Amino acid sequence: MATEGTAIICRAAVAWTPDTPVSLEDVQVDPPKAGEVRIKILFSGLCGTDLHILEGRTKMPFPIILGHEGAGVVESVGEGVTTVKPGDHVLPLSVPQCRECRSCLHPKGNFCRKENIISPTGLMLDGTSRFTCKGKRVFNLYGTSTFSEYTVVSEIAVARVDKAAPLDRVCIMSCQVPTGFGAVVNTAKVTSGSTCVVIGLGGIGLAIVMACKASGAARIIGVDINEDKFPWARELGVTDVLNPGQLSRPVQEEIQEMTGGGADFAFEAVGLNDTMVATLESCDPSFGVAVLVGMAPSGQKLTFDPILMLPGRNLRGGAMGEYKTRDAIPQLVSAYLQGHVRTDPLITHRFPFQDIRRAFRLQQEGGCIRCVLRLGEGQEVKDEQGGSL
Amino acid sequence: MATEGTAIICRAAVAWTPDTPVSLEDVQVDPPKAGEVRIKILFSGLCGTDLHILEGRTKMPFPIILGHEGAGVVESVGEGVTTVKPGDHVLPLSVPQCRECRSCLHPKGNFCRKENIISPTGLMLDGTSRFTCKGKRVFNLYGTSTFSEYTVVSEIAVARVDKAAPLDRVCIMSCQVPTGFGAVVNTAKVTSGSTCVVIGLGGIGLAIVMACKASGAARIIGVDINEDKFPWARELGVTDVLNPGQLSRPVQEEIQEMTGGGADFAFEAVGLNDTMVATLESCDPSFGVAVLVGMAPSGQKLTFDPILMLPGRNLRGGAMGEYKTRDAIPQLVSAYLQGHVRTDPLITHRFPFQDIRRAFRLQQEGGCIRCVLRLGEGQEVKDEQGGSL
Repeated sequence: MATEGTAIICRAAVAWTPDTPVSLEDVQVDPPKAGEVRIKILFSGLCGTDLHILEGRTKMPFPIILGHEGAGVVESVGEGVTTVKPGDHVLPLSVPQCRECRSCLHPKGNFCRKENIISPTGLMLDGTSRFTCKGKRVFNLYGTSTFSEYTVVSEIAVARVDKAAPLDRVCIMSCQVPTGFGAVVNTAKVTSGSTCVVIGLGGIGLAIVMACKASGAARIIGVDINEDKFPWARELGVTDVLNPGQLSRPVQEEIQEMTGGGADFAFEAVGLNDTMVATLESCDPSFGVAVLVGMAPSGQKLTFDPILMLPGRNLRGGAMGEYKTRDAIPQLVSAYLQGHVRTDPLITHRFPFQDIRRAFRLQQEGGCIRCVLRLGEGQEVKDEQGGSL
Repeated sequence: MATEGTAIICRAAVAWTPDTPVSLEDVQVDPPKAGEVRIKILFSGLCGTDLHILEGRTKMPFPIILGHEGAGVVESVGEGVTTVKPGDHVLPLSVPQCRECRSCLHPKGNFCRKENIISPTGLMLDGTSRFTCKGKRVFNLYGTSTFSEYTVVSEIAVARVDKAAPLDRVCIMSCQVPTGFGAVVNTAKVTSGSTCVVIGLGGIGLAIVMACKASGAARIIGVDINEDKFPWARELGVTDVLNPGQLSRPVQEEIQEMTGGGADFAFEAVGLNDTMVATLESCDPSFGVAVLVGMAPSGQKLTFDPILMLPGRNLRGGAMGEYKTRDAIPQLVSAYLQGHVRTDPLITHRFPFQDIRRAFRLQQEGGCIRCVLRLGEGQEVKDEQGGSL
């Protein structure tokens, strides 16, 4: 199903250097090579991780096109691609599923060895880039780069989804939803009647809240220093809110007392040492499960007294909610279509692509749960394939 | 079944101050109060933790009678004691099971709230001591103090075992065996065909090795800086041995390469920051389970890059192998009697009580797996109850 490809010139948000707002630029997107898929991105969520990378918290090559929570339509495929074809509706995945490496083959593994979001190269699997802007090579983010009207993604990182699914809503199924839901159902395995703590009530934290409630948690304690988050949090299922800035003692001590000795499950969705330790100390020493979901800045160390682990605590991590992505994400989308998963409340804002800087500012201020950008319409698209999509 | 009690004068090994050899002294052992049991100790293993406490690595009140791996016979019981009677064969437990607190009531909890081995008081639950020596109050260790011919233990910390069990062999079922076995079967849940790493081949480490083998591990990599441990380790199931002192790179890198990306399960049985980090890094990033079994010195911090957790690692702790002690340890003893659990090879040395200093030295030099001390016979016992046992 390979097509003879040509380069496309389109709009993309280029982050030239850390800590500088992104610029909308004309970029050249090369055709997909063997095993690759070029996707016309229609919508993309803006995740806290995009912001953190732009802020320079994470080691990442620049210039780069950010965005990893997109949805779109396959424009063309490279040689040997068999699992998707032009016209398919797809979500690019920052955690691929090659189905061959030992993570993919292991029943409990999902962190495919083929892409490395821990030490990202910013390049395709063959070590080259498909993006050029002003004569310069531009790097990709986790092999996805959804802040571009067209992007090229490895076939192993493409989830084909039901064409009935509204892409402006299910785009968040490529990061926010599986990351939050999977932390609850796959990693922690939250039980009915349990007490949960969620530290950090951003987009991921609130997806966690939603999944805790769906799992039957009896009590969900939400923690954030920004009280603007509390109404959303309560609406999604939080029963108790705590602002550590308003407490006279560490939040974990407050939670230990509120819960008579610690929560059953505690989630960290911030990515800082202090909140990670608070999460560990918030859960019951004997049977509590603490899940680290937030990504820490590069080089940061987590430091705690190992005696915390002795009574039986369980500290867990996991990317993309430990879902095997290409298998599970189309199922999540189907569950959405069947009304089993109601994620629409997680999207609070929608902006056209040209307002991406405003979306970054909103994310920085904590003024949204998730802002979804609309690409590919309502603006000048230099699309050599025509505007048929 | 309460008996009118009188004090007993008997021999005990008193640790007067940290970092000084224990002294065999005449101590007064008061009668059991309500809810307590006085036990004539016949045998006691000497565990690495006893040595570490004597070395001053752990915060502990002195003077103290160490020992927490004993076996003996109930001499008398205090008011209200119903679960054991004089003459019963018992093991004192450093992790009790009150069957009332939230750890005991939770299906996954075993760290009974009634005793606190993390911040030990050295006293009985009523805040007093049963030991006096030379006019001074002497503290107990974890409510057990088995380096005394008689000791007083809370009823909730006494496991009654089958009288057919040889106490000189099953005494290690009160710490070494459940700690090692439970780390494997309860905490890590080692699977058949898996690859395991055991860092630290002391008494606990080798009990872990034994349980990994019994669980069907295909490969067991044993790590120690003392190569004298290797023959025992190989005999018990270790397939590959590594001495970090002889390697040109960190042992975790060696293990990552040997295993093609990390072990399924990794156990730390040393209690130091470096070995804990090495354990975490030795296991597969995506599905590896790292279990911290060694007790770290007081105040030590565990420090690592939290990105290690992101791909899906699982870091777990657990005391006494997460067994609910009074329920499980009699069952372990029965399994021993039925030949299902063969722990005799873990006992390599047997000394009379008066040679306890020699036993400490042997432990310090790593010259034994477990040395069991024989109390209550072959020496002058000032036992007011007579020598009927």
